Amino acid sequence: MIHVYRYEENPLITPADVTPHREDFEVIGAFNAGIAKYGDEIIMLLRVAERPISPKPGIVLAPVYDAANDRLDLIELREDDERYDFSDPRVIRNRSESATFQYLTSLSYLRIARSRDGRHFTVDDKPFIYPSQPLESFGIEDPRITQIGDTYYIYFSAVSPVGVGESLVSTTDFRTVTHHGMIFSPDNKDVLIFPEKIGGKYYALHRPTTKSVGNPEIWIAESDNLLQWGNHRHLLGLRPGMWDSGRIGGGAVPIRTERGWLELYHGATKEHRYCMGAVLLDLEDPSKVIARSNKPILEPEAPYEKEGFFGDVVFSCGALVEGDIVKMYYGVADTSMAAAELSLREILDSLEKV
Amino acid sequence: MIHVYRYEENPLITPADVTPHREDFEVIGAFNAGIAKYGDEIIMLLRVAERPISPKPGIVLAPVYDAANDRLDLIELREDDERYDFSDPRVIRNRSESATFQYLTSLSYLRIARSRDGRHFTVDDKPFIYPSQPLESFGIEDPRITQIGDTYYIYFSAVSPVGVGESLVSTTDFRTVTHHGMIFSPDNKDVLIFPEKIGGKYYALHRPTTKSVGNPEIWIAESDNLLQWGNHRHLLGLRPGMWDSGRIGGGAVPIRTERGWLELYHGATKEHRYCMGAVLLDLEDPSKVIARSNKPILEPEAPYEKEGFFGDVVFSCGALVEGDIVKMYYGVADTSMAAAELSLREILDSLEKV
Repeated sequence: MIHVYRYEENPLITPADVTPHREDFEVIGAFNAGIAKYGDEIIMLLRVAERPISPKPGIVLAPVYDAANDRLDLIELREDDERYDFSDPRVIRNRSESATFQYLTSLSYLRIARSRDGRHFTVDDKPFIYPSQPLESFGIEDPRITQIGDTYYIYFSAVSPVGVGESLVSTTDFRTVTHHGMIFSPDNKDVLIFPEKIGGKYYALHRPTTKSVGNPEIWIAESDNLLQWGNHRHLLGLRPGMWDSGRIGGGAVPIRTERGWLELYHGATKEHRYCMGAVLLDLEDPSKVIARSNKPILEPEAPYEKEGFFGDVVFSCGALVEGDIVKMYYGVADTSMAAAELSLREILDSLEKV
Repeated sequence: MIHVYRYEENPLITPADVTPHREDFEVIGAFNAGIAKYGDEIIMLLRVAERPISPKPGIVLAPVYDAANDRLDLIELREDDERYDFSDPRVIRNRSESATFQYLTSLSYLRIARSRDGRHFTVDDKPFIYPSQPLESFGIEDPRITQIGDTYYIYFSAVSPVGVGESLVSTTDFRTVTHHGMIFSPDNKDVLIFPEKIGGKYYALHRPTTKSVGNPEIWIAESDNLLQWGNHRHLLGLRPGMWDSGRIGGGAVPIRTERGWLELYHGATKEHRYCMGAVLLDLEDPSKVIARSNKPILEPEAPYEKEGFFGDVVFSCGALVEGDIVKMYYGVADTSMAAAELSLREILDSLEKV
């Protein structure tokens, strides 16, 4: 039995807490935040999603960042244009190629919220990492943060018309960043870089999405320098009939425990119900799976988890560990941020050997 | 005007020239070969595709390599099983998930053909590189060979139920190989590693296939050690209405010329007519595109190019250059190998600035 203590302050941050970065935009999401400790602050690196306010009924504006001219274009579409399918709130599809999307309905970027107690956060006035590269023209999403020494490696999905890949930046002060380019080519997301070398190599989990054959599952890769990755291997698959039968992906930065590397990962059914579970990887060789959650450790149950822009979603991109307490921060319903405390021992004891 | 001199000996190798690696198999393809010079030999590293001979009418056997037990399993399927779609000669689809394939109809592996004159080849008695890794259970396809010093780097599509990625091996003698694992995670193919460092870094072209958004187009990546790759950038896109409007991918190892790196690449229409064309990349910075073929340099015209297992395909994985002569070897109709000579100057002069 896993006890979940959801903070009374939940949701910790909602779109109403974030001022839009432009007057003609509205904030529709502040969610899926990467988490770090920086000095005496807890940093919540929010994915903020903003939508251009429609100038008149029947018109939808699709935001596209133009890197060549360093400006944001707003593509005007008519809702009654039969070439487009607006039924998914997240994307605009071209009916002639409905497998892929043509535009996103919102632009995501990264913005810092700061806290001393981990429960009350203040959102920075301005974006921290805004689209600035050609591969980011549809936005940047779902950051994770791995601290190695004094450097914080921040990586996120970079979305553009040529695909969804994972890009890396680094910072030492959460003020300025250095760009390191795309480290996992499309389609890929849900990258999690381990916080230390193992046997002389860095490791990362990643989640390719394949077209020809295969499912959205978790892979592992190796690196000497964090910038270039190789020796890609398939690590963890879907489980038909279970909570992680539709898609899975890494969540929080792997946590070193005596029993192994604990990865808190998300799993969804084909009906898009997103839960959090855990997998334990070998300490010396993280490509070996030791044990795994047969049931979720966290399911969408609270109202703010069940209802929102895209409901029935709990999706963690970061956690803090203090002794036996895992403070798991997580996006809810693709809308807001929440947090819950769980017992590390209870999570570990709940895992079933594989 | 580009002159194409097809060898009188074409096709140089056909399936009839290759003995199957097992008595219960038949060779259906010997094509898309990587090319290298080794001593005084020209090595043609064939992709050999073999199909298990059906034991009785109405039965199809799907070959699957089982790495854990190092054996080849033959999955028996009934042609009248309504769960499966056998209409594509290359793959067997599950009708309930028809976007992806469930099995391949043949197993591909790599086998050496040797020649002194580049026109008459003798096929080795045995496979050279046969599936041996978990990520190769559906076979290995379309090798390319980059020689750096005395080492030949051989890389190919590794196909398995978890996706199609690109794996690397190396050899110095075309007898034994060292495995380096998967260097580009799924879905990816048509990798071409440049034959020397440029500005202190190795470069490779690669071709992700994306599901969410984007097209099968050519990307470029960097490496310090050939094993780990990063700084992925989009390089070359499709051109609606032209010969390369449906999909493109690198072909031969990039050729250093005075005017830039010349890449012979394949392009296909959405109707799957595969041609060869060329693109010129900056000598100092191969992420810069200088010029490109508005018309193919080679189109399927000869009977052996138009008819076969999958017709209307010319697909080069390797070329040799001697002075002004480009000896382009190429797979035809997913069946056999052919070669043609073209003038390097004529190719370069034909390119249109972009």
